[in-house]
This record gives sequence, C-alpha cells and structure tokens, in this order.
Amino acid sequence: MEFNQAMAQTIAENTAITEDERSLIVSFTEVCCFLSDNPIFLSWRGKKKPSVFNDEGLNILAQKYFDGYRKSDFPAIPQTVPDEIVSVVMQVAYGYSEEQCNQIKLEHQHSMCAENCVGALLERYLDSVLRSNGWHWCCGNFVKAIDFIRRNDDGTWLPLQIKNRDNSENSSSSAIRNGTPIQKWFRSFSKTGKTNWDNLPPSMQGYSLNEQGFINFVRQYLDEEKRHRNYQK
Amino acid sequence: MEFNQAMAQTIAENTAITEDERSLIVSFTEVCCFLSDNPIFLSWRGKKKPSVFNDEGLNILAQKYFDGYRKSDFPAIPQTVPDEIVSVVMQVAYGYSEEQCNQIKLEHQHSMCAENCVGALLERYLDSVLRSNGWHWCCGNFVKAIDFIRRNDDGTWLPLQIKNRDNSENSSSSAIRNGTPIQKWFRSFSKTGKTNWDNLPPSMQGYSLNEQGFINFVRQYLDEEKRHRNYQK
Repeated sequence: MEFNQAMAQTIAENTAITEDERSLIVSFTEVCCFLSDNPIFLSWRGKKKPSVFNDEGLNILAQKYFDGYRKSDFPAIPQTVPDEIVSVVMQVAYGYSEEQCNQIKLEHQHSMCAENCVGALLERYLDSVLRSNGWHWCCGNFVKAIDFIRRNDDGTWLPLQIKNRDNSENSSSSAIRNGTPIQKWFRSFSKTGKTNWDNLPPSMQGYSLNEQGFINFVRQYLDEEKRHRNYQK
Repeated sequence: MEFNQAMAQTIAENTAITEDERSLIVSFTEVCCFLSDNPIFLSWRGKKKPSVFNDEGLNILAQKYFDGYRKSDFPAIPQTVPDEIVSVVMQVAYGYSEEQCNQIKLEHQHSMCAENCVGALLERYLDSVLRSNGWHWCCGNFVKAIDFIRRNDDGTWLPLQIKNRDNSENSSSSAIRNGTPIQKWFRSFSKTGKTNWDNLPPSMQGYSLNEQGFINFVRQYLDEEKRHRNYQK
C-alpha cells in the first residue's frame, strides 16, 4: 500500500482551525508518513487501530493529533485524597506537627500535579522552537515511545524520545527502544539537579534551546492558560 | 524432587538470631515449601536462581528472608534533587512565592519518602498480628506478586497480595495474577480516603485488624527505629 500524502494533508487542513494549528499540518502528514513506513509504532488503546492508508483512519488520527495539541497542560486539580497514615509517618519520622502536616498535604498534592505536567510542557517548548526547523512533534499520544521525528538528508527517519529526568522511565519503557534507532535525550539529572541542554543530539543543536528558554516558555504558557481559565469563569 | 522441610528449618534456625526472628522460622519453611509447589513464583534478580531443593539455595533464601526482616523501613533520606522547574510551575499555577516553594520542595521530598515506606509498614503490621495465626509473610522480596500465604484446611495454598491503595499498582503488575488464585486486598481508597478494613478476605478476619491498630503500630515501629538510630549516632 502506498501512503497518500495529499490525502493526509487535506484532512489535516480540514481539522486545523487557527493559524497556529495550521503550522502543524506538515508535521501531521510527516508523522503519518513515518507510521506508514513503521506501522509497529502506531499505538492505539481502542479495539480497532486506525489505518494511515485510508480516509477514515487519517480523520481519526488528525482529530487525536489536534485534540492533543489543544488540550491544556495547566496542572490538574488533585483527584485523590491524601492518605492519613502519611501524616503519621511525617510526624514521627521528621517531627512535623499535625497542623504543619495539614498544610503539607495540600502543597504535596500541588507539587505532584505540577510535576506531572512538566514532561508535556517540555515537549511543547521543544515543538515551539523546532517546528519551523524540520522537526515534527508526535502530538496526540499515538506514536509509541517517540516524541519527535525528522528526516535525515538521505531520506531515512530520525526518531527521538524526550524525558524530563534521567530517572523518569522504567526498564520496560526503555526496552521498546532496543533494536530500534530511537535516540533519547533527557533534560535533567535527578541526583544533581543539573540540566542537560549541553548534550542535545546534534540534530537539535543550533536553535538556542536552553534552560532559561524553557523557564520563560513555561511561565508564558501557564500565564496564558490561567488568563484563559479566568476569562471562561 | 521432594522438598526437604527439615533441611529448610535447620537452615532457618541457623540464620535467625533473636527470639523474635526465631518466631519466623515456620514462615520461612512454609514459604519455601510453597515455592517448591509453585516454582514460577520465585523471583530473583541475579543470574542464577537459588533452588529450594538444596542446601545452598535454601541458605541464600534464608539470608535474603531474614535480611529483609531486619532492614529498617524508617523513611529514607531523599536521594534526588528537586527539579527547579516544578517550583516555577507552582508559582505561576498556584501562586506560591519563591520562599514558600523552597520550603515546599523539602516537605514534598519528605512526603514522598514517607509515602514510599507505607506499603512495607502495612506488611509489617499484618505480619505482627497474623504470624501466630497461620499466615506466613513472604518477606525478603523473592516471592513474585504474593505477600502472605497460608494453608487451607484441605492442604491447598491461599496466596494473598496486599496493596496500600486501590491505585498503587499498574496494569502490568496486576496481570501476573491472571489465571492464578491470588487474592488481593488494599487498605485505602484513593478517591475518598476511606479505609477498607471491613473488607478483609474472610481468612484474615477475626484478628481485630483495623486502622487504629495500624496507626498505633506505625507510631511504635518508627519511634523504636528512631531511638535505635539516635543511639547509634
């Protein structure tokens, strides 16, 4: 079967709404083209995997791709209730008072929610810089173990996986890379807190990606999301 | 091959030191007997799995069993450095000040360390009550997906897995139970904070296991560990 790039593009054009979204049309078609070459990397939770070789499948994927892009990565509101025994441990082991523990419980939940959105924000930052430089973001969570792809000069694919920390994946999720040419980059070292921007893969160098740029991006993104939320209230 | 109960017992007798440890000798031999009936549940990280059918293997397992029992479950000192971007998210999303974030970082690490030891403390509490009531603790981390076993009246085994919360395992760790008769019990509901002591499996009922007993046990265990640590300094 041959991949129909024009069909993918038309479908993406019909799905993208804003000017900003329209600048992702090329990335969507490239991601689908990659999946047509490497079908085992299509990850799908539902019963029937969509196909990149027909209209119906491409429509489903385009919807998921742009929905993923539109989804807010503002930290969620905690959905779980703190376990009271943790406060008991905190009091006996570290000497916190009951009153301190009540405050710590909430702040700890906020910390977890904040941590949980960092990985997604990192991908958004990289996309914001790399989109116009030949990299394509695998947005929408349907490409397995790969976050960005680009084409090498010889036409082969260069897939890249991004992690926020050197300890943010377990052995089973790293196993999927065995035998595949997926490169990996992580942003920070859990033991030292140092960042790893000096060690970007060569193909991502030269675009001034750095920690201060990431911090600025995070501030701006969350500020905008917050304004948008307050506006909606 | 036949399992040599007397050999396992002698080896455990040579490994156990204190009176308290000696009361675990029966449990160790029963756990090894269970593994001789169900060898696929022996979990081992090293190259060569020890065998429950010979002297050498039983010695290795006894060492691991009693080492696991002696290991302290006092919360560890954080080994990782907080990710600074989390504080940025906390400031913008929840309005914390930079100063507050510095304190929250440490308390959040303490909270994580406290959370991490709760599962082990729960097993210790259950063992402290159930050990003299026909249950055997699978201490030492070499029995896969099973925390306690007992013999039914008809001689068959009743394996049990314990979790602290209804959300503390992922789908791959629950998959190991498929097709096996392992029962599961969890202590608390993550969405409501309620505990689940009213729903203990029938074979664990009647021993007054309850939340207040667990809280008392945790306080006492950590107090003793703390005293012991201060004494060693």
